[in-house]
Amino acid sequence: RHGGGHKATPGVHFTVSVVLPAGGTGERTGLVTPKQFCTFLNRPLISYTIQAFERLSWIQHIVVVVAEESSALMRDIVQRFQHTKVRVVSGGATRHRSIFNGVQALDTGESGATPDVVIIHDAVRPFVEEDFLLEIAMAAKENGASGAIRPLVSTVIATSSEGYLDHSLERGKYRASEMPQGFLYHVIYQAYQKCSEFDFDFGTECLHLALQHAGTKAKLIEGPPTLWKVTYKRDLAAVESIIKETLCGSACVTFDGSERSRDLGRCLQKVMGSFDMEVDVLPELIGDASCLSREWNFIQLCVNGSGLSEVEETVKSLQAANRALLHPVVVVWVRLDTSDGMSVSETGAGPLLLMELASAAKLHNILLYGIHFLLSEEDTGFSDGSVKRLAELTYTLIHDRNAVLAGQMLHA
Amino acid sequence: RHGGGHKATPGVHFTVSVVLPAGGTGERTGLVTPKQFCTFLNRPLISYTIQAFERLSWIQHIVVVVAEESSALMRDIVQRFQHTKVRVVSGGATRHRSIFNGVQALDTGESGATPDVVIIHDAVRPFVEEDFLLEIAMAAKENGASGAIRPLVSTVIATSSEGYLDHSLERGKYRASEMPQGFLYHVIYQAYQKCSEFDFDFGTECLHLALQHAGTKAKLIEGPPTLWKVTYKRDLAAVESIIKETLCGSACVTFDGSERSRDLGRCLQKVMGSFDMEVDVLPELIGDASCLSREWNFIQLCVNGSGLSEVEETVKSLQAANRALLHPVVVVWVRLDTSDGMSVSETGAGPLLLMELASAAKLHNILLYGIHFLLSEEDTGFSDGSVKRLAELTYTLIHDRNAVLAGQMLHA
Ligand SMILES: [Mg+2]
Ligand SMILES: [Mg+2]
Repeated sequence: RHGGGHKATPGVHFTVSVVLPAGGTGERTGLVTPKQFCTFLNRPLISYTIQAFERLSWIQHIVVVVAEESSALMRDIVQRFQHTKVRVVSGGATRHRSIFNGVQALDTGESGATPDVVIIHDAVRPFVEEDFLLEIAMAAKENGASGAIRPLVSTVIATSSEGYLDHSLERGKYRASEMPQGFLYHVIYQAYQKCSEFDFDFGTECLHLALQHAGTKAKLIEGPPTLWKVTYKRDLAAVESIIKETLCGSACVTFDGSERSRDLGRCLQKVMGSFDMEVDVLPELIGDASCLSREWNFIQLCVNGSGLSEVEETVKSLQAANRALLHPVVVVWVRLDTSDGMSVSETGAGPLLLMELASAAKLHNILLYGIHFLLSEEDTGFSDGSVKRLAELTYTLIHDRNAVLAGQMLHA
Repeated sequence: RHGGGHKATPGVHFTVSVVLPAGGTGERTGLVTPKQFCTFLNRPLISYTIQAFERLSWIQHIVVVVAEESSALMRDIVQRFQHTKVRVVSGGATRHRSIFNGVQALDTGESGATPDVVIIHDAVRPFVEEDFLLEIAMAAKENGASGAIRPLVSTVIATSSEGYLDHSLERGKYRASEMPQGFLYHVIYQAYQKCSEFDFDFGTECLHLALQHAGTKAKLIEGPPTLWKVTYKRDLAAVESIIKETLCGSACVTFDGSERSRDLGRCLQKVMGSFDMEVDVLPELIGDASCLSREWNFIQLCVNGSGLSEVEETVKSLQAANRALLHPVVVVWVRLDTSDGMSVSETGAGPLLLMELASAAKLHNILLYGIHFLLSEEDTGFSDGSVKRLAELTYTLIHDRNAVLAGQMLHA
């Protein structure tokens, strides 16, 4: 998942590096922790943003510019989440001074070491996609500068000094300037070299500096709404929701070899498909490296027998493959029980073993849940209602990825 | 909760009514359902916005303006959630035509029937608070017009016709115009009577029309960030999160009379206080009407005995008091068990009875969950770790308010 070699992407015949200013203080969220360090599923926001660039083969280096006091924290994040393209540098007193520090850090002194194009992005815009970054990089190469824009959501008005309406702007003529922005290295370098102390202290717009001091008119490209800047407390809930959505797109159901559990697997596949989850049904998982490298969630079915040892194997394999490095992986153990009523061994020992196993797995970012799927002995098939109930519970566990509920044995 | 009589609020010595345009099509969320009709905890967004006004004694009428095809749906919502101040009228072809329809609907022809002040608000800004509405109403009474503003989050830029940067605006001089806005009735009426067909079709800003056609300079007041307009798909997650936060502020713990359960109640109170949940501990709930009228969640503790019949009583009382009309109410049954191991009767019958009771309660918007809190017989007190675990589970159930998990028996 970590980018690997610098394979050329068709069309990117030039070098591209990234500067990520990450020095914000987060006053607008009303939180103590700056937004870029707020964690989602145990991982700081800045790591998601880094990953959005690091996974692209045509991105060379990522310079993260942080406040002096966040430097140790940032280095720890880079190490913990095994980021390989990142250099951490200290920021200046203002946003522009920080960005210039980042731009300068890309010049290592070796000839040919500076990138052709620099992309500047905000640490708190984690959901930028490859196709849009490509557009920005290409437009920067061609025009010297480029920037993302969005339509205005509100009418913009000018106020009088006494706080009354002076006039309103015609909304169609203006745009909101967003990130990412792209620059030829020498354009952004020259813009900062020539700009005034006032620009450094009070300027807000890199594109404006490029226009004023390098004579470069930026090409503006409308970006998708997911580019938005995480600003308010409510945005944190939006981020969490988007991350969770992206993680529950697919699952792998394994069955224990019995016909009954294979049938159940296929029923589940159908119902969860209607929830927009793509489900594969496999007889066995263990030892298959290709299974572990995919962005799957795991559902293990077993009939009557416990099947917990197979679940334990899965957890060990996921651990060995380092699959839960960037986000928690969900494993749902579904135990189909066709006996009438529940005996002590089934309801007593199972839940306690599950709880212990789940506690250990949680330490490795693997979230294990159990579902007891009880059918009376007369039921030979699976009723639509009972499978739907099972699918809903399973989907909820996978979607919510709630660590507090790990180890619980639910009933369907 | 529904406003009751029109008590005068200190300072509001004039009449105020509201126009809520709710005709948007929701294209920007990418959803089929327009945002104002998207449901959160089984209730459409528009009902939350209506409630924000209806609960205020100094608001007289609320005119909701909807597209012809949403009229039946809107009337159904008004009836289902027992809104008492609402009149539903049909909109025009554009936002301004719709608002004017709403303004005209406030004039019933009776002398003195039109309000002194009209507040115009968006159906998709549900979190407006009384103090801010008061400011807007007062400023409208005094100045003829008033409007909410917010600082700009992004730099606003002007683009050339070829899509290049032309210039950027100085951010400090401009503001985003938001809702609510307030007007003297005759000011907004005159603005619409005098404005052109072009204004009706392409205008975006009521404040601008009041300036142009009634010569009224609106007073601008900075509002809180929670005023934002629900626009994108990500905003739906933010709305849900804010609603859930407001619902998990307080809980009532009842204990079964035993010293053990009272002690546990006090331990829970302490730990859940550290999660920012205000917890009251009471010996009994049933029959106390004041308990049922509060915005509480309910936690019922019992030692060894089942206690499910008391839970059933609570559910019935909440139902009788119509407590779950506007949002689901959570009841958590905590069963303290000091026997070693679990017997069939405890683990088998309990969960099945709970599931049945929860299914019935869910039909009335009451979400019932169980937690089996197992202590070995040697434990005489409650360890910090075990109470923290119980508190976390309880808090998660109350906070997440997940209907799919209703009826589950969890283990702490
Ligand atoms: Mg900028
Ligand atoms: Mg407007």
